[in-house]
Amino acid sequence: MPKRELAVVLMSGGMDSCVSAAIAAQTYDIAALHLNYGQRTERRELRAFNEIADYLHAQKRLVVNIEHLAAIGGSSLTDSSIEVPTANLQRKGIPTSYVPFRNANFLSIAVSWAEVIGATKIFIGAVEEDSSGYPDCRKSFYDAFNKVIREGTKPETSIEIITPLIDMTKAQIVKRGVEIGAPLQLTWSCYKNEDIACGVCDSCALRLRGFAQAGVEDPIPYKEKPAYI
Amino acid sequence: MPKRELAVVLMSGGMDSCVSAAIAAQTYDIAALHLNYGQRTERRELRAFNEIADYLHAQKRLVVNIEHLAAIGGSSLTDSSIEVPTANLQRKGIPTSYVPFRNANFLSIAVSWAEVIGATKIFIGAVEEDSSGYPDCRKSFYDAFNKVIREGTKPETSIEIITPLIDMTKAQIVKRGVEIGAPLQLTWSCYKNEDIACGVCDSCALRLRGFAQAGVEDPIPYKEKPAYI
Repeated sequence: MPKRELAVVLMSGGMDSCVSAAIAAQTYDIAALHLNYGQRTERRELRAFNEIADYLHAQKRLVVNIEHLAAIGGSSLTDSSIEVPTANLQRKGIPTSYVPFRNANFLSIAVSWAEVIGATKIFIGAVEEDSSGYPDCRKSFYDAFNKVIREGTKPETSIEIITPLIDMTKAQIVKRGVEIGAPLQLTWSCYKNEDIACGVCDSCALRLRGFAQAGVEDPIPYKEKPAYI
Repeated sequence: MPKRELAVVLMSGGMDSCVSAAIAAQTYDIAALHLNYGQRTERRELRAFNEIADYLHAQKRLVVNIEHLAAIGGSSLTDSSIEVPTANLQRKGIPTSYVPFRNANFLSIAVSWAEVIGATKIFIGAVEEDSSGYPDCRKSFYDAFNKVIREGTKPETSIEIITPLIDMTKAQIVKRGVEIGAPLQLTWSCYKNEDIACGVCDSCALRLRGFAQAGVEDPIPYKEKPAYI
């Protein structure tokens, strides 16, 4: 069997990045990268990351502490003085859970690691439609970042960002995850709790709606579920 | 007097970033940003950073620890198993002191901070010609990164990277620094020592040659100087 190429896979421990990683693992050996940026539920996310990395037989694993993003502040995910909002999926604009330029920080670390270990792809589970308006989840952002990689790495380096979920809805992600056997039961999405998912934060609400629309039961338990589920 | 705009200024403590910061301070209030990435001479560089920030009356100051770049390794600046090479200014190609994609990591943090504090410019003292071939010191890299910023930040955000030294030689940087009163006596460039600059590492050699070509005496002491100075 020919040796497979290596791909760095950004894995938060959430559902999207789990499906993205499972897609990567179909074609590549995977190097799993988790960023701890001082989010409230980091301990639970790290557990999910490790369990998913085990399940997908990650060849390499790196956990990077970038809590300076919390020190910089400006986001309810990291700033405990800003309340985590209850979901309103009709709300437009940039949510308060936005960490400025977060994905560029993640990708820069991923590229540094990829160049050192000889990985040729970086998988990130960004979703344009269901991203609640985060500007660094748009396809045009990744196209621009791929150009930065070509300009900013050694001439012999070839690294490309792959966003396998970018055009999908949450329901399509759930369906694809089930089809390819992604370990959705190991994932953690809640922004608020670490024991039982709250069911009402933006992230829980988007996930639950996705499962409902896909006609699949979410394998993890919830404290409560929104009325529309 | 009208309120001045705010600029984030990346300052290593070295000569180039000091001149870049002094140029920024002519037009903007400055927010000084220092990245500790586990380099050997970090303690001395941080002292230089603070002294330069004091001298230029920085309005804000942030020191961010990104030692994960050291953990990722692959560079003689951060990996103590790779020897710091003695300068050979005729050597071509990527030097071993290269930290993969380092400046993208720096800029991503700078953009996150700039967006939170409302800064409109980011100054970085990158130099294309004297950069010893670091791919992330080229003008085309910064042009590409500016596009990533436009794509990856909020619609109302306007942040632009400024590279005031990009086309200069080290000699021109020395001359400009002297002209505008940049505190070159406070800077630290040596990659090897923290007490008296070694004079023979790549960084010392480039600096000394720049002062010599500018016809200006370097105000800091050296342990030894290359024969051609």
